[in-house]
Amino acid sequence: MTVNLKGIAASDGLVCGRAYRLVEPDLSFQRQQVSNLDNELERFHQALEAAVSDVETIKMRATKSLGTDGAQVFSTHITMLQDPELIGTVDQTIRKEEVNAESAWASAVAQYETALEKLTDNPYMQERVTDLHDINKRVLAHLLRVSLPDLALIDQPVIVVTHDLIPSDTVSVNPQFILGFVTDVGGRTSHSSILARSLNIPAVVGTQTVTQAVKSGDQLVINGTQGTVTIEPDAATWQMAQQAMADRQANLDHLAAFRNHKTTTKDGRGVTLAANIGNASDLPSVLHNGAEAVGLMRTEFLYMNGDKLPTEDEQFDVYREVVKALAPKTVVIRTLDIGGDKPLPYLHQHPEANPFLGERAIRQSLAHQQIFRSQLRALLRASAYGHLRIMFPMIATLDEFRQAKAIYDDERSKLTTKQVPLGEIKVGMMVEVPAAAMLADRFAQEADFMSIGTNDLIGYTLAADRTNQDVAYLYQPYHPAVLRLINQVISAGHAAGIPVAMCGEMAGDPIAVPLLLGMGLDEFSMGAGTILKTRELIGQLTAADLGALAETALNSASTSQEVVTMVQAAVPGIVS
Amino acid sequence: MTVNLKGIAASDGLVCGRAYRLVEPDLSFQRQQVSNLDNELERFHQALEAAVSDVETIKMRATKSLGTDGAQVFSTHITMLQDPELIGTVDQTIRKEEVNAESAWASAVAQYETALEKLTDNPYMQERVTDLHDINKRVLAHLLRVSLPDLALIDQPVIVVTHDLIPSDTVSVNPQFILGFVTDVGGRTSHSSILARSLNIPAVVGTQTVTQAVKSGDQLVINGTQGTVTIEPDAATWQMAQQAMADRQANLDHLAAFRNHKTTTKDGRGVTLAANIGNASDLPSVLHNGAEAVGLMRTEFLYMNGDKLPTEDEQFDVYREVVKALAPKTVVIRTLDIGGDKPLPYLHQHPEANPFLGERAIRQSLAHQQIFRSQLRALLRASAYGHLRIMFPMIATLDEFRQAKAIYDDERSKLTTKQVPLGEIKVGMMVEVPAAAMLADRFAQEADFMSIGTNDLIGYTLAADRTNQDVAYLYQPYHPAVLRLINQVISAGHAAGIPVAMCGEMAGDPIAVPLLLGMGLDEFSMGAGTILKTRELIGQLTAADLGALAETALNSASTSQEVVTMVQAAVPGIVS
Repeated sequence: MTVNLKGIAASDGLVCGRAYRLVEPDLSFQRQQVSNLDNELERFHQALEAAVSDVETIKMRATKSLGTDGAQVFSTHITMLQDPELIGTVDQTIRKEEVNAESAWASAVAQYETALEKLTDNPYMQERVTDLHDINKRVLAHLLRVSLPDLALIDQPVIVVTHDLIPSDTVSVNPQFILGFVTDVGGRTSHSSILARSLNIPAVVGTQTVTQAVKSGDQLVINGTQGTVTIEPDAATWQMAQQAMADRQANLDHLAAFRNHKTTTKDGRGVTLAANIGNASDLPSVLHNGAEAVGLMRTEFLYMNGDKLPTEDEQFDVYREVVKALAPKTVVIRTLDIGGDKPLPYLHQHPEANPFLGERAIRQSLAHQQIFRSQLRALLRASAYGHLRIMFPMIATLDEFRQAKAIYDDERSKLTTKQVPLGEIKVGMMVEVPAAAMLADRFAQEADFMSIGTNDLIGYTLAADRTNQDVAYLYQPYHPAVLRLINQVISAGHAAGIPVAMCGEMAGDPIAVPLLLGMGLDEFSMGAGTILKTRELIGQLTAADLGALAETALNSASTSQEVVTMVQAAVPGIVS
Repeated sequence: MTVNLKGIAASDGLVCGRAYRLVEPDLSFQRQQVSNLDNELERFHQALEAAVSDVETIKMRATKSLGTDGAQVFSTHITMLQDPELIGTVDQTIRKEEVNAESAWASAVAQYETALEKLTDNPYMQERVTDLHDINKRVLAHLLRVSLPDLALIDQPVIVVTHDLIPSDTVSVNPQFILGFVTDVGGRTSHSSILARSLNIPAVVGTQTVTQAVKSGDQLVINGTQGTVTIEPDAATWQMAQQAMADRQANLDHLAAFRNHKTTTKDGRGVTLAANIGNASDLPSVLHNGAEAVGLMRTEFLYMNGDKLPTEDEQFDVYREVVKALAPKTVVIRTLDIGGDKPLPYLHQHPEANPFLGERAIRQSLAHQQIFRSQLRALLRASAYGHLRIMFPMIATLDEFRQAKAIYDDERSKLTTKQVPLGEIKVGMMVEVPAAAMLADRFAQEADFMSIGTNDLIGYTLAADRTNQDVAYLYQPYHPAVLRLINQVISAGHAAGIPVAMCGEMAGDPIAVPLLLGMGLDEFSMGAGTILKTRELIGQLTAADLGALAETALNSASTSQEVVTMVQAAVPGIVS
């Protein structure tokens, strides 16, 4: 029977496919006496082998995206799954106690855990407890013949159905197999939604009940433009979705023509269209979509995957790979932006009442300089392989910028003394705290470039947490106050002779693009999937007209809606 | 033996006195068989009487600060303490079971509670459970002869020693008996510290251990300027503190001369010095310190005291009292600013990841209009008794201001139809969200007045939670970005012909005052205790010189420290 669900439209497009439920399965079992011991032993060893095979696959995929060191944790899992002592205990329990494999395995794991927990003064052993929980679940799942969902194991196109997506879920996913996704919770500005838009795949969030309503393998049609989900649709709906997917593909083929074009307005004003990336595995998509640069490479993934800080060499490998792959195009790499909603469990940061207003990003780096210095050294070393720019996040005061710059200079001169080869590096800052935007004229005297981070800038300027559904209506990119701050930054940068970029979602927003061109923005950095359609849009605009549009919006608009109306009047046919 | 503790300097001044520990006492006891039953019965009835007498005292004080309705809860406590059925059960248990009074009382209370909890569908009865816990503690404390500390019971000058002060602790306190206070936790910008500065009493916070180190009655010297606490000081230290208190009193006597002066600069520019109040009980201090207006009356106390929403009439009584007492001076009353760090338990607000960026203040009022409309009706009715101004907090968009104003207009016209007498009311807004400051020119077209709330404005502009010790260094009132926003608001107000006030802590800050005068601020609203010294300071300044000072700070300063240096150079001898 067809069931329809209503959610929040998170990322445009209509798509059909089979559901893949990413939810914790029920792994409960009963202890049972068994008579056929050989059969039980064989069940156990088959489950072990299947678990090892899963982990091998995940490890292979993770190695691609994170490098050998980043995937190290999976080697540990394999070693534990092959531990003769653990296996021997289970075999013996099955034989002696004549119990089912689930029960024998679980009690052996429990013994192992107790032993590990006694080693309270050995942090390495403590981390193994987490690993043990992982392998325990994996073996139990095979014994119970329930599937343990894992995005890294997906090998055919599916629609992911889950309660919520968190950043770490997506580290080792292969985006080509994700047709779209649907979640129970979240709003248009939650992580899941931003991810979907950056991958350019349809998504519906906040359905409340999709994980209850859908089984893996169900046929789904999701409409990310209207926010609807159809479970087991009729043939007509399915065909309509297939047609939409074909049209979408045709549009992608049409946009492909712009891949190797320069980005210029109708009247010949050139700007740079760059990509935001979160991972070395995004590189193919960056090149495929004709990005002219990387305007923002986030580095959190290096720290959020795994259970300890990455080494300087691990980081160097990844930075070098990206810088080298893009050369001679420039790559802007942002230093670590953790804290806020992105804590690192192994750093034992204490909880904050308002993490978005807490010790995050550059504040964390300046408070924990060893982590910061290690990252700067890795970046400096990678600079020899291409055109690197380093960007500090969340700068609010000149004191912070100067302090970060001084630490950078110190590491630079130490490496120079050691005759380590270095490239030419520019050092700039994100403008995402209102104070930095207000004081952009002073910052522009000391930074080599500025990049406006609208996601946070909008949140702080409106005092609204974009992940909080109750105030999401206040997260207004076109609020005239936000436009005025952006305009101040661009003007200040140009007065000082430095380029100004934008690396928030807003840079690829069709309503915002004419305004930003009108204000003179130099570089637009966005999810790679948005680049080609933005290049097409810019080619249809006349820069000479847009200065007046921007000026009217800055001086005469009182509300976000008035701004939208002004843009739509000036650029007929544009839609947000 | 003398012990010295180091904490954070929270509010200036040196003071000596006896400690009063505000900590939960140990009320544990053993069930015991007793033989002298008459003695046990007498102990119980004496404890009951003493408890009733305590509650009578608290009720009397609370009636003064909260009005009859606000103190209603204490009448309920007295009724419960005199409940013949409860008393009869205890008497009978002592006689029949021959047990001590503590045990008999506790078991009768437990029976009572079980009976109340069965009435799960009766919210009134559910509230009585909380009341029962209160009277239970009070009677047990008297039986065990331990004192149950309560700020409302203090009747001689003491230094309060506590883990932390929360706003509700201070509702019924008589400030004249609080010489100073010392806490275990908190920073310079925590509630306790702000309260101490607004009451103008010395305080040291964040000592970690003071509640463990100090007994009630210990002699203490606290130095709120240096952040030190001396327990059982030697005679010389005690005398020095007494001398400092005498000097302080002499200074207060000196400042008293300014009580009935107008506030003007040396060259005759007049401004208004107003008081911030949180409660009708602050009125004597407002009048005593020569405030020319109330620039901010917070209304949260009406909602945070008690266990349900205040009625329209309860609010009306309080608003009328304040408006009437101040007339013909103006009183600005701010509509409810809950949410953020000030939740109301009985509203069942769901927890937010970043409450400072959540559904607080006007956002909450617009989402729960019945609460807002009831407050507006109470305010409208009170307007007939003096000069009332209504101010909406946390306005971020013109849509919000227009919506709030439309609800106000609706309630106003309904009351007019009913021929309820109303005074002339102006309707304005707090400027505390950066978006409002950036768009002040548009807001000034629609608001009757604007008042800059620097406490929040600074926090959002720097993206720093002032209550988070790790980022408190970023809470910078003199950051040039903050000054620029303030200047924009003042200029926009004046261009539109409306007055601009400031009601944050910054308005009474000696470094900020010359800058604010230079920018043309019309009204400075601050804790009453700061008014007289600010009036003296302004009398020593020459307005004609300050415009240039402000302009230099706005255009040429890069950091907070540079601003301080500029002010100190322009106004020799000024200290922050």
